[in-house]
Amino acid sequence: MLAKSPQAGILIIGDEILSGRTQDINLSFLGRRLQDLGISLAQARILPDQEDVIANDVFSFHATYDYVFTTGGIGPTHDDITSQSVAKAFSLPLVLNQQAKAIIQKRLPNTQLTPHQLKMAHVPEGATLIDNPITDAPGFRIKNVFVLAGVPKIMQVMFENIVPQLQAGEPFHNKTLRCLLGESILAPGLDIIQQQHQNVSIGSYPFWGLNTHGASLVLRSQNLEEIEVAAKQIEQLIQSLGAELID
Amino acid sequence: MLAKSPQAGILIIGDEILSGRTQDINLSFLGRRLQDLGISLAQARILPDQEDVIANDVFSFHATYDYVFTTGGIGPTHDDITSQSVAKAFSLPLVLNQQAKAIIQKRLPNTQLTPHQLKMAHVPEGATLIDNPITDAPGFRIKNVFVLAGVPKIMQVMFENIVPQLQAGEPFHNKTLRCLLGESILAPGLDIIQQQHQNVSIGSYPFWGLNTHGASLVLRSQNLEEIEVAAKQIEQLIQSLGAELID
Repeated sequence: MLAKSPQAGILIIGDEILSGRTQDINLSFLGRRLQDLGISLAQARILPDQEDVIANDVFSFHATYDYVFTTGGIGPTHDDITSQSVAKAFSLPLVLNQQAKAIIQKRLPNTQLTPHQLKMAHVPEGATLIDNPITDAPGFRIKNVFVLAGVPKIMQVMFENIVPQLQAGEPFHNKTLRCLLGESILAPGLDIIQQQHQNVSIGSYPFWGLNTHGASLVLRSQNLEEIEVAAKQIEQLIQSLGAELID
Repeated sequence: MLAKSPQAGILIIGDEILSGRTQDINLSFLGRRLQDLGISLAQARILPDQEDVIANDVFSFHATYDYVFTTGGIGPTHDDITSQSVAKAFSLPLVLNQQAKAIIQKRLPNTQLTPHQLKMAHVPEGATLIDNPITDAPGFRIKNVFVLAGVPKIMQVMFENIVPQLQAGEPFHNKTLRCLLGESILAPGLDIIQQQHQNVSIGSYPFWGLNTHGASLVLRSQNLEEIEVAAKQIEQLIQSLGAELID
Protein backbone atom coordinates (compact mmCIF):
# COMPACT_ATOMS: atom_id res chain seq x y z
CA MET A 1 0.00 0.00 0.00
CA LEU A 2 1.11 3.55 0.53
CA ALA A 3 4.48 4.25 2.07
CA LYS A 4 4.52 5.84 5.50
CA SER A 5 4.79 9.62 5.12
CA PRO A 6 7.58 11.63 6.69
CA GLN A 7 6.24 13.52 9.73
CA ALA A 8 6.85 17.17 10.50
CA GLY A 9 6.27 19.54 13.42
CA ILE A 10 6.19 23.33 13.26
CA LEU A 11 7.17 25.86 15.91
CA ILE A 12 5.83 29.37 15.31
CA ILE A 13 7.89 31.63 17.55
CA GLY A 14 6.91 35.08 18.73
CA ASP A 15 5.06 36.98 21.44
CA GLU A 16 3.36 39.01 18.70
CA ILE A 17 1.43 35.95 17.54
CA LEU A 18 0.28 34.99 21.04
CA SER A 19 -0.77 38.56 21.84
CA GLY A 20 -2.94 38.64 18.74
CA ARG A 21 -1.03 41.64 17.38
CA THR A 22 0.13 39.66 14.35
CA GLN A 23 -2.08 37.20 12.50
CA ASP A 24 0.10 34.22 11.66
CA ILE A 25 -0.15 33.09 8.05
CA ASN A 26 2.99 30.95 7.98
CA LEU A 27 1.30 27.83 9.32
CA SER A 28 -1.26 27.67 6.53
CA PHE A 29 1.44 28.16 3.88
CA LEU A 30 3.64 25.45 5.35
CA GLY A 31 0.63 23.18 5.86
CA ARG A 32 -0.29 23.39 2.17
CA ARG A 33 3.28 22.97 0.93
CA LEU A 34 3.95 19.98 3.18
CA GLN A 35 0.79 18.35 1.85
CA ASP A 36 2.03 18.86 -1.70
CA LEU A 37 5.27 17.19 -0.69
CA GLY A 38 3.57 14.24 0.98
CA ILE A 39 4.94 15.22 4.37
CA SER A 40 2.44 14.84 7.17
CA LEU A 41 2.18 17.79 9.55
CA ALA A 42 1.65 16.20 12.96
CA GLN A 43 1.22 19.37 15.01
CA ALA A 44 2.23 22.98 15.40
CA ARG A 45 2.95 25.08 18.44
CA ILE A 46 2.93 28.82 18.94
CA LEU A 47 5.63 29.72 21.45
CA PRO A 48 6.59 32.88 23.30
CA ASP A 49 10.03 34.52 23.05
CA GLN A 50 11.43 32.41 25.91
CA GLU A 51 14.68 30.53 25.45
CA ASP A 52 13.92 27.54 27.68
CA VAL A 53 10.49 26.98 26.19
CA ILE A 54 11.81 27.12 22.63
CA ALA A 55 14.85 24.94 23.38
CA ASN A 56 12.71 22.26 25.03
CA ASP A 57 10.23 22.05 22.19
CA VAL A 58 12.93 22.13 19.49
CA PHE A 59 14.60 19.15 21.11
CA SER A 60 11.39 17.26 21.66
CA PHE A 61 10.15 17.85 18.09
CA HIS A 62 13.63 16.94 16.77
CA ALA A 63 13.40 13.62 18.59
CA THR A 64 9.79 12.96 17.54
CA TYR A 65 9.46 14.05 13.90
CA ASP A 66 11.43 13.67 10.70
CA TYR A 67 11.47 17.41 10.11
CA VAL A 68 11.05 20.45 12.31
CA PHE A 69 10.41 23.93 10.94
CA THR A 70 10.62 27.06 13.04
CA THR A 71 9.49 30.53 11.98
CA GLY A 72 10.47 33.83 13.55
CA GLY A 73 13.07 35.24 15.89
CA ILE A 74 16.20 35.36 13.73
CA GLY A 75 16.58 39.14 13.36
CA PRO A 76 19.12 41.45 15.01
CA THR A 77 17.17 42.70 18.02
CA HIS A 78 17.09 41.57 21.65
CA ASP A 79 13.77 39.74 21.17
CA ASP A 80 15.22 37.52 18.41
CA ILE A 81 16.31 34.49 20.38
CA THR A 82 15.56 31.55 18.13
CA SER A 83 19.17 30.84 17.08
CA GLN A 84 20.50 30.77 20.62
CA SER A 85 17.51 28.68 21.73
CA VAL A 86 18.12 26.10 19.00
CA ALA A 87 21.82 25.98 19.94
CA LYS A 88 20.78 25.41 23.53
CA ALA A 89 18.39 22.64 22.50
CA PHE A 90 21.36 20.67 21.18
CA SER A 91 23.92 21.93 23.73
CA LEU A 92 25.91 23.43 20.87
CA PRO A 93 27.82 26.70 20.94
CA LEU A 94 26.45 29.57 18.90
CA VAL A 95 29.28 30.50 16.54
CA LEU A 96 29.99 33.17 13.94
CA ASN A 97 29.45 31.66 10.50
CA GLN A 98 31.96 33.24 8.10
CA GLN A 99 29.78 32.61 5.06
CA ALA A 100 26.83 34.32 6.75
CA LYS A 101 29.06 37.19 7.78
CA ALA A 102 30.22 37.61 4.17
CA ILE A 103 26.60 37.67 2.97
CA ILE A 104 25.67 40.41 5.42
CA GLN A 105 28.88 42.33 4.75
CA LYS A 106 28.16 42.32 1.02
CA ARG A 107 25.03 44.40 1.62
CA LEU A 108 27.01 46.86 3.73
CA PRO A 109 30.35 47.23 1.95
CA ASN A 110 33.06 49.31 3.66
CA THR A 111 31.19 49.13 6.93
CA GLN A 112 32.39 47.64 10.17
CA LEU A 113 29.55 45.30 11.09
CA THR A 114 28.09 45.95 14.51
CA PRO A 115 27.56 43.21 17.09
CA HIS A 116 23.82 43.31 16.29
CA GLN A 117 24.44 42.85 12.58
CA LEU A 118 26.85 40.03 13.36
CA LYS A 119 24.18 38.47 15.57
CA MET A 120 22.38 37.46 12.37
CA ALA A 121 25.51 35.57 11.26
CA HIS A 122 25.64 33.44 14.41
CA VAL A 123 24.31 29.89 14.14
CA PRO A 124 24.69 26.70 16.16
CA GLU A 125 28.02 25.03 15.38
CA GLY A 126 27.67 22.72 12.39
CA ALA A 127 24.60 24.45 10.94
CA THR A 128 24.29 25.00 7.20
CA LEU A 129 22.78 28.20 5.85
CA ILE A 130 19.42 28.70 4.14
CA ASP A 131 19.48 31.36 1.45
CA ASN A 132 17.43 34.54 1.83
CA PRO A 133 17.52 36.44 -1.46
CA ILE A 134 15.14 39.11 -0.13
CA THR A 135 16.96 40.62 2.84
CA ASP A 136 20.11 38.45 2.77
CA ALA A 137 20.20 37.47 6.47
CA PRO A 138 20.12 33.69 6.18
CA GLY A 139 18.18 30.98 7.98
CA PHE A 140 19.89 27.74 8.85
CA ARG A 141 19.54 24.03 9.18
CA ILE A 142 20.93 22.01 12.07
CA LYS A 143 20.20 18.27 12.12
CA ASN A 144 16.52 17.93 11.10
CA VAL A 145 15.58 21.43 12.25
CA PHE A 146 15.06 24.18 9.67
CA VAL A 147 15.14 27.68 11.13
CA LEU A 148 13.20 30.11 8.92
CA ALA A 149 12.37 33.81 9.09
CA GLY A 150 9.05 35.02 10.48
CA VAL A 151 8.26 37.51 7.72
CA PRO A 152 5.99 35.47 5.41
CA LYS A 153 7.57 36.51 2.10
CA ILE A 154 11.04 35.64 3.36
CA MET A 155 9.90 32.44 5.08
CA GLN A 156 8.27 31.25 1.87
CA VAL A 157 11.34 31.72 -0.30
CA MET A 158 13.53 30.11 2.35
CA PHE A 159 11.18 27.14 2.43
CA GLU A 160 11.33 26.73 -1.33
CA ASN A 161 15.11 26.79 -1.06
CA ILE A 162 15.15 23.82 1.29
CA VAL A 163 12.59 21.70 -0.55
CA PRO A 164 15.36 19.75 -2.34
CA GLN A 165 16.70 18.73 1.09
CA LEU A 166 13.37 17.18 2.12
CA GLN A 167 12.53 13.59 1.43
CA ALA A 168 9.13 13.90 -0.18
CA GLY A 169 6.40 11.34 0.38
CA GLU A 170 3.36 10.46 -1.69
CA PRO A 171 1.58 13.85 -2.13
CA PHE A 172 -1.69 14.38 -0.32
CA HIS A 173 -4.65 15.20 -2.53
CA ASN A 174 -7.77 17.13 -1.60
CA LYS A 175 -11.25 17.31 -2.92
CA THR A 176 -13.99 19.52 -1.51
CA LEU A 177 -17.73 18.95 -1.99
CA ARG A 178 -20.28 21.48 -0.84
CA CYS A 179 -24.01 21.24 -0.33
CA LEU A 180 -26.84 23.03 1.44
CA LEU A 181 -27.51 20.32 4.00
CA GLY A 182 -26.82 20.61 7.69
CA GLU A 183 -24.11 18.46 9.19
CA SER A 184 -26.53 16.53 11.38
CA ILE A 185 -28.44 15.34 8.31
CA LEU A 186 -25.25 14.24 6.58
CA ALA A 187 -23.58 12.71 9.61
CA PRO A 188 -25.03 9.15 9.56
CA GLY A 189 -24.15 8.61 5.90
CA LEU A 190 -20.75 10.22 6.28
CA ASP A 191 -20.00 7.85 9.15
CA ILE A 192 -20.47 4.87 6.88
CA ILE A 193 -18.47 6.33 4.00
CA GLN A 194 -15.62 7.23 6.35
CA GLN A 195 -15.59 3.69 7.74
CA GLN A 196 -15.40 2.28 4.23
CA HIS A 197 -12.41 4.47 3.32
CA GLN A 198 -9.87 4.40 6.10
CA ASN A 199 -7.22 5.84 3.76
CA VAL A 200 -9.31 8.96 3.16
CA SER A 201 -9.73 11.51 5.89
CA ILE A 202 -13.13 13.14 5.50
CA GLY A 203 -13.64 16.49 7.23
CA SER A 204 -17.00 18.19 7.57
CA TYR A 205 -17.16 21.96 8.05
CA PRO A 206 -20.41 23.88 8.41
CA PHE A 207 -20.95 27.21 6.73
CA TRP A 208 -23.67 29.84 6.88
CA GLY A 209 -24.88 32.24 4.23
CA LEU A 210 -27.54 34.90 4.56
CA ASN A 211 -30.49 32.54 4.50
CA THR A 212 -28.71 29.27 3.94
CA HIS A 213 -26.47 26.92 5.73
CA GLY A 214 -24.58 23.94 4.51
CA ALA A 215 -21.47 21.85 4.84
CA SER A 216 -18.13 21.60 3.07
CA LEU A 217 -16.89 18.05 2.93
CA VAL A 218 -13.16 17.81 2.46
CA LEU A 219 -11.61 14.53 1.38
CA ARG A 220 -7.88 14.15 1.89
CA SER A 221 -5.73 11.20 1.00
CA GLN A 222 -2.54 10.09 -0.71
CA ASN A 223 -4.74 7.85 -2.84
CA LEU A 224 -6.43 9.92 -5.52
CA GLU A 225 -8.56 7.06 -6.82
CA GLU A 226 -9.97 6.34 -3.39
CA ILE A 227 -10.82 10.03 -3.00
CA GLU A 228 -12.81 9.82 -6.24
CA VAL A 229 -14.69 6.72 -5.09
CA ALA A 230 -15.54 8.25 -1.71
CA ALA A 231 -16.50 11.55 -3.36
CA LYS A 232 -18.91 9.73 -5.64
CA GLN A 233 -20.50 8.07 -2.60
CA ILE A 234 -20.83 11.42 -0.85
CA GLU A 235 -22.45 12.90 -3.93
CA GLN A 236 -24.96 10.03 -3.94
CA LEU A 237 -25.57 10.55 -0.22
CA ILE A 238 -26.32 14.22 -0.83
CA GLN A 239 -28.71 13.36 -3.67
CA SER A 240 -30.43 10.69 -1.60
CA LEU A 241 -31.11 13.41 0.99
CA GLY A 242 -32.82 15.54 -1.66
CA ALA A 243 -30.03 18.03 -2.25
CA GLU A 244 -27.22 18.49 -4.73
CA LEU A 245 -23.63 19.60 -4.98
CA ILE A 246 -23.04 23.33 -5.20
CA ASP A 247 -19.92 25.26 -6.20
CA MET B 1 4.40 45.44 42.42
CA LEU B 2 2.13 43.83 39.88
CA ALA B 3 0.22 40.72 40.79
CA LYS B 4 1.14 37.52 38.97
CA SER B 5 -1.17 37.07 35.98
CA PRO B 6 -3.31 33.99 35.50
CA GLN B 7 -1.80 31.81 32.77
CA ALA B 8 -3.68 30.25 29.88
CA GLY B 9 -3.01 27.71 27.15
CA ILE B 10 -4.97 27.29 23.93
CA LEU B 11 -5.57 24.13 21.90
CA ILE B 12 -6.75 24.76 18.34
CA ILE B 13 -8.17 21.45 17.16
CA GLY B 14 -8.65 20.39 13.57
CA ASP B 15 -6.95 18.75 10.60
CA GLU B 16 -8.22 21.60 8.42
CA ILE B 17 -5.93 24.07 10.19
CA LEU B 18 -2.85 21.84 9.88
CA SER B 19 -3.54 21.14 6.21
CA GLY B 20 -3.68 24.86 5.48
CA ARG B 21 -7.22 24.55 4.14
CA THR B 22 -8.57 26.84 6.85
CA GLN B 23 -6.75 29.91 8.07
CA ASP B 24 -7.15 29.99 11.85
CA ILE B 25 -8.28 33.35 13.21
CA ASN B 26 -9.36 32.14 16.64
CA LEU B 27 -5.93 32.37 18.20
CA SER B 28 -5.51 36.07 17.44
CA PHE B 29 -9.00 36.84 18.81
CA LEU B 30 -8.35 34.91 22.01
CA GLY B 31 -4.86 36.40 22.29
CA ARG B 32 -6.25 39.93 22.20
CA ARG B 33 -9.12 39.23 24.58
CA LEU B 34 -6.90 37.48 27.11
CA GLN B 35 -4.56 40.48 27.07
CA ASP B 36 -7.50 42.77 27.81
CA LEU B 37 -8.36 40.53 30.72
CA GLY B 38 -4.82 40.45 32.07
CA ILE B 39 -4.53 36.72 31.46
CA SER B 40 -1.18 35.70 30.08
CA LEU B 41 -1.29 33.34 27.11
CA ALA B 42 1.65 31.00 27.66
CA GLN B 43 1.38 28.99 24.46
CA ALA B 44 -0.97 27.55 21.87
CA ARG B 45 -0.96 24.27 20.02
CA ILE B 46 -2.61 23.26 16.77
CA LEU B 47 -3.64 19.63 17.03
CA PRO B 48 -4.96 17.06 14.57
CA ASP B 49 -8.29 15.25 15.00
CA GLN B 50 -6.71 12.46 17.08
CA GLU B 51 -8.23 11.50 20.39
CA ASP B 52 -5.03 10.50 22.20
CA VAL B 53 -3.14 13.59 21.13
CA ILE B 54 -5.96 15.89 22.23
CA ALA B 55 -6.56 14.05 25.51
CA ASN B 56 -2.85 14.19 26.43
CA ASP B 57 -2.51 17.89 25.75
CA VAL B 58 -5.80 18.77 27.47
CA PHE B 59 -4.60 17.04 30.61
CA SER B 60 -1.12 18.50 30.46
CA PHE B 61 -2.42 22.05 29.87
CA HIS B 62 -5.03 21.55 32.61
CA ALA B 63 -2.24 20.67 35.03
CA THR B 64 0.05 23.51 33.90
CA TYR B 65 -2.14 26.55 33.35
CA ASP B 66 -4.95 28.33 35.17
CA TYR B 67 -7.19 28.21 32.12
CA VAL B 68 -7.33 26.07 29.00
CA PHE B 69 -9.37 27.00 25.94
CA THR B 70 -10.03 24.60 23.10
CA THR B 71 -11.59 25.51 19.74
CA GLY B 72 -13.11 23.15 17.22
CA GLY B 73 -14.43 19.62 17.02
CA ILE B 74 -17.76 19.84 18.85
CA GLY B 75 -20.14 19.34 15.91
CA PRO B 76 -22.22 16.27 15.03
CA THR B 77 -19.96 14.53 12.51
CA HIS B 78 -17.45 11.70 12.88
CA ASP B 79 -14.50 14.08 12.79
CA ASP B 80 -15.78 16.03 15.81
CA ILE B 81 -13.99 14.29 18.66
CA THR B 82 -13.12 17.05 21.09
CA SER B 83 -15.78 16.22 23.69
CA GLN B 84 -14.84 12.56 23.91
CA SER B 85 -11.14 13.48 23.98
CA VAL B 86 -11.66 15.89 26.88
CA ALA B 87 -13.67 13.23 28.72
CA LYS B 88 -10.80 10.82 28.15
CA ALA B 89 -8.27 13.37 29.41
CA PHE B 90 -10.00 13.27 32.80
CA SER B 91 -11.09 9.61 32.68
CA LEU B 92 -14.69 10.76 32.86
CA PRO B 93 -17.65 9.20 31.06
CA LEU B 94 -19.22 11.16 28.23
CA VAL B 95 -22.85 11.57 29.25
CA LEU B 96 -26.03 12.98 27.74
CA ASN B 97 -26.67 16.39 29.28
CA GLN B 98 -30.45 16.89 29.57
CA GLN B 99 -30.18 20.67 29.44
CA ALA B 100 -28.13 20.46 26.23
CA LYS B 101 -30.63 18.00 24.80
CA ALA B 102 -33.50 20.38 25.57
CA ILE B 103 -31.64 23.24 23.87
CA ILE B 104 -31.13 21.21 20.70
CA GLN B 105 -34.68 19.82 20.81
CA LYS B 106 -36.08 23.36 21.00
CA ARG B 107 -34.66 24.11 17.56
CA LEU B 108 -36.20 20.92 16.17
CA PRO B 109 -39.63 20.66 17.83
CA ASN B 110 -41.67 17.51 17.20
CA THR B 111 -38.59 15.71 15.92
CA GLN B 112 -37.01 12.60 17.30
CA LEU B 113 -33.38 13.66 17.71
CA THR B 114 -30.95 11.40 15.89
CA PRO B 115 -27.85 9.95 17.54
CA HIS B 116 -25.75 12.51 15.68
CA GLN B 117 -27.84 15.40 16.92
CA LEU B 118 -27.66 13.97 20.43
CA LYS B 119 -23.88 13.71 20.05
CA MET B 120 -23.78 17.48 20.46
CA ALA B 121 -25.56 17.12 23.81
CA HIS B 122 -22.93 14.75 25.22
CA VAL B 123 -20.36 16.23 27.57
CA PRO B 124 -17.94 14.84 30.16
CA GLU B 125 -19.78 14.08 33.39
CA GLY B 126 -19.90 17.15 35.62
CA ALA B 127 -19.42 19.67 32.80
CA THR B 128 -21.41 22.91 32.74
CA LEU B 129 -22.70 24.28 29.46
CA ILE B 130 -21.51 27.36 27.58
CA ASP B 131 -24.28 29.18 25.75
CA ASN B 132 -24.31 29.37 21.96
CA PRO B 133 -27.03 31.82 20.89
CA ILE B 134 -26.08 31.48 17.21
CA THR B 135 -26.58 27.79 16.43
CA ASP B 136 -27.67 26.60 19.91
CA ALA B 137 -25.33 23.58 20.21
CA PRO B 138 -23.48 24.47 23.40
CA GLY B 139 -19.86 24.37 24.42
CA PHE B 140 -18.93 23.31 27.92
CA ARG B 141 -16.61 23.81 30.84
CA ILE B 142 -15.06 20.99 32.81
CA LYS B 143 -12.62 21.91 35.58
CA ASN B 144 -10.43 24.69 34.15
CA VAL B 145 -10.98 23.65 30.52
CA PHE B 146 -13.34 25.65 28.31
CA VAL B 147 -14.45 23.81 25.18
CA LEU B 148 -15.49 26.27 22.46
CA ALA B 149 -16.72 25.96 18.88
CA GLY B 150 -14.33 26.28 15.94
CA VAL B 151 -16.48 28.61 13.84
CA PRO B 152 -15.06 32.04 14.75
CA LYS B 153 -18.37 33.87 15.18
CA ILE B 154 -19.67 31.18 17.52
CA MET B 155 -16.38 30.81 19.36
CA GLN B 156 -16.30 34.54 20.01
CA VAL B 157 -19.76 34.75 21.51
CA MET B 158 -19.08 31.64 23.61
CA PHE B 159 -15.92 33.26 24.90
CA GLU B 160 -17.74 36.44 25.88
CA ASN B 161 -20.24 34.27 27.74
CA ILE B 162 -17.54 32.74 29.91
CA VAL B 163 -15.64 35.94 30.66
CA PRO B 164 -17.47 36.35 34.00
CA GLN B 165 -16.11 32.93 35.03
CA LEU B 166 -12.50 34.01 34.49
CA GLN B 167 -10.43 35.62 37.18
CA ALA B 168 -9.06 38.66 35.40
CA GLY B 169 -5.58 39.98 36.09
CA GLU B 170 -4.12 43.41 35.57
CA PRO B 171 -4.83 44.15 31.87
CA PHE B 172 -1.92 44.21 29.46
CA HIS B 173 -1.44 47.46 27.58
CA ASN B 174 0.21 47.95 24.22
CA LYS B 175 1.83 50.82 22.47
CA THR B 176 3.31 50.69 18.99
CA LEU B 177 5.94 53.09 17.63
CA ARG B 178 7.00 53.03 13.99
CA CYS B 179 9.96 54.54 12.21
CA LEU B 180 11.89 54.20 8.97
CA LEU B 181 15.05 52.81 10.52
CA GLY B 182 16.33 49.29 10.09
CA GLU B 183 16.31 46.98 13.09
CA SER B 184 20.11 46.67 13.14
CA ILE B 185 20.45 50.44 13.61
CA LEU B 186 17.93 50.45 16.43
CA ALA B 187 19.12 47.29 18.13
CA PRO B 188 21.91 48.64 20.40
CA GLY B 189 19.70 51.37 21.84
CA LEU B 190 16.71 49.04 22.19
CA ASP B 191 18.88 46.62 24.15
CA ILE B 192 19.58 49.26 26.77
CA ILE B 193 15.97 50.43 26.99
CA GLN B 194 14.75 46.84 27.34
CA GLN B 195 17.25 46.22 30.13
CA GLN B 196 16.04 49.33 31.97
CA HIS B 197 12.40 48.21 31.78
CA GLN B 198 12.10 44.58 32.75
CA ASN B 199 8.34 44.96 33.21
CA VAL B 200 7.88 46.03 29.61
CA SER B 201 8.28 43.53 26.81
CA ILE B 202 9.59 45.34 23.76
CA GLY B 203 9.10 43.61 20.42
CA SER B 204 10.74 44.77 17.21
CA TYR B 205 9.17 43.85 13.87
CA PRO B 206 10.61 44.89 10.52
CA PHE B 207 8.41 46.04 7.67
CA TRP B 208 9.03 46.89 4.04
CA GLY B 209 7.30 49.40 1.78
CA LEU B 210 7.94 50.02 -1.87
CA ASN B 211 11.14 51.95 -1.39
CA THR B 212 11.29 52.04 2.36
CA HIS B 213 11.88 49.76 5.23
CA GLY B 214 11.47 50.30 8.90
CA ALA B 215 10.54 48.79 12.22
CA SER B 216 7.47 48.60 14.40
CA LEU B 217 8.35 48.64 18.06
CA VAL B 218 5.65 47.17 20.25
CA LEU B 219 5.71 47.81 23.98
CA ARG B 220 3.60 45.54 26.15
CA SER B 221 3.15 45.67 29.89
CA GLN B 222 0.67 45.67 32.71
CA ASN B 223 2.23 48.96 33.81
CA LEU B 224 0.96 51.74 31.59
CA GLU B 225 3.22 54.39 33.12
CA GLU B 226 6.34 52.34 32.46
CA ILE B 227 5.22 51.85 28.85
CA GLU B 228 5.04 55.61 28.50
CA VAL B 229 8.50 56.12 29.98
CA ALA B 230 10.04 53.44 27.73
CA ALA B 231 8.16 54.80 24.70
CA LYS B 232 9.58 58.26 25.35
CA GLN B 233 13.09 56.76 25.47
CA ILE B 234 12.50 54.92 22.21
CA GLU B 235 11.28 58.12 20.60
CA GLN B 236 14.46 59.85 21.75
CA LEU B 237 16.54 56.96 20.43
CA ILE B 238 14.87 57.26 17.02
CA GLN B 239 15.49 61.00 16.96
CA SER B 240 19.12 60.57 18.02
CA LEU B 241 19.52 58.31 14.98
CA GLY B 242 18.25 61.08 12.70
CA ALA B 243 14.74 59.74 12.12
CA GLU B 244 11.31 60.34 13.56
CA LEU B 245 8.14 58.54 14.49
CA ILE B 246 5.71 57.81 11.68
CA ASP B 247 2.08 56.76 11.81
